[in-house]
Amino acid sequence: MSPADAETRVTRDDHEVLRLWLRLLATTNLIEGRIRRRLQDRFTTTLPRFDLMSQLDRAPDGLKMGELSRRMMVTGGNVTGITDGLEAEGLVARIPDPEDRRVLRVRLTTAGRRAFRLMASEHEGWIVDLFAGLESEQRAMLSDLLGRLKLHIRAKED
Amino acid sequence: MSPADAETRVTRDDHEVLRLWLRLLATTNLIEGRIRRRLQDRFTTTLPRFDLMSQLDRAPDGLKMGELSRRMMVTGGNVTGITDGLEAEGLVARIPDPEDRRVLRVRLTTAGRRAFRLMASEHEGWIVDLFAGLESEQRAMLSDLLGRLKLHIRAKED
Repeated sequence: MSPADAETRVTRDDHEVLRLWLRLLATTNLIEGRIRRRLQDRFTTTLPRFDLMSQLDRAPDGLKMGELSRRMMVTGGNVTGITDGLEAEGLVARIPDPEDRRVLRVRLTTAGRRAFRLMASEHEGWIVDLFAGLESEQRAMLSDLLGRLKLHIRAKED
Repeated sequence: MSPADAETRVTRDDHEVLRLWLRLLATTNLIEGRIRRRLQDRFTTTLPRFDLMSQLDRAPDGLKMGELSRRMMVTGGNVTGITDGLEAEGLVARIPDPEDRRVLRVRLTTAGRRAFRLMASEHEGWIVDLFAGLESEQRAMLSDLLGRLKLHIRAKED
């Protein structure tokens, strides 16, 4: 193989990887956009609000604000502002940390948990529909490939 | 199979799809986060700025503001504000549309194109490194699966 061939191939490979990244980003954006619109239409709520309640649903003892911010999966929301809004609606409460009463934890109220579970159950149905273009084996393969990719990136210190 | 088994399986499948979506989102966020940090460290720039210049690089005649907004791949930036900033640095220019001189198009200046190409070439290397955890065949498979998923979602009117 001539040096020119090797160089051409490297370049083509690079572009291919770039296209793969843009496809990954576009697919995620597409799904996220659908979910944002449905949360708005069905529950007049936003994805960052849903995401925040979802993080609290998995943390029965509540979370400190810093932990909550770190766990958020979507951008575009101010965690303090969202918490204030949800608190005003009685869906979350700020409570003193039992180990250090100067620190506040945020947790779902009973009403908040009920409201979240209702949305979450419908949300899960949307996700099932959106992913219905893949067979079960294809979904397993996609999950495996994403897992490998994530593991490789996590292992690389940045 | 008893009804209870079927129900249990459906529920397990649903959760599996939800986990797949969260993994897709987390992987995209992880890569996006690495790129945001490197753009900052290496070029003191942001991903929305890079994204905007990248859209203009593919549009030699420039784009109207509305088209530019629609083509953006990342959130978190105000397109007008970014354009103002890049214009002040001489990297983009607003020029009257040849077909309707009341309409402005944004395009890269020569300096802007040079600056973008320099960043883009390094950016491509980061992407190649980040995806190096997958073999060429695995990348092709991932691309194919994402393509199917996107096609299915696009075909569903929302």
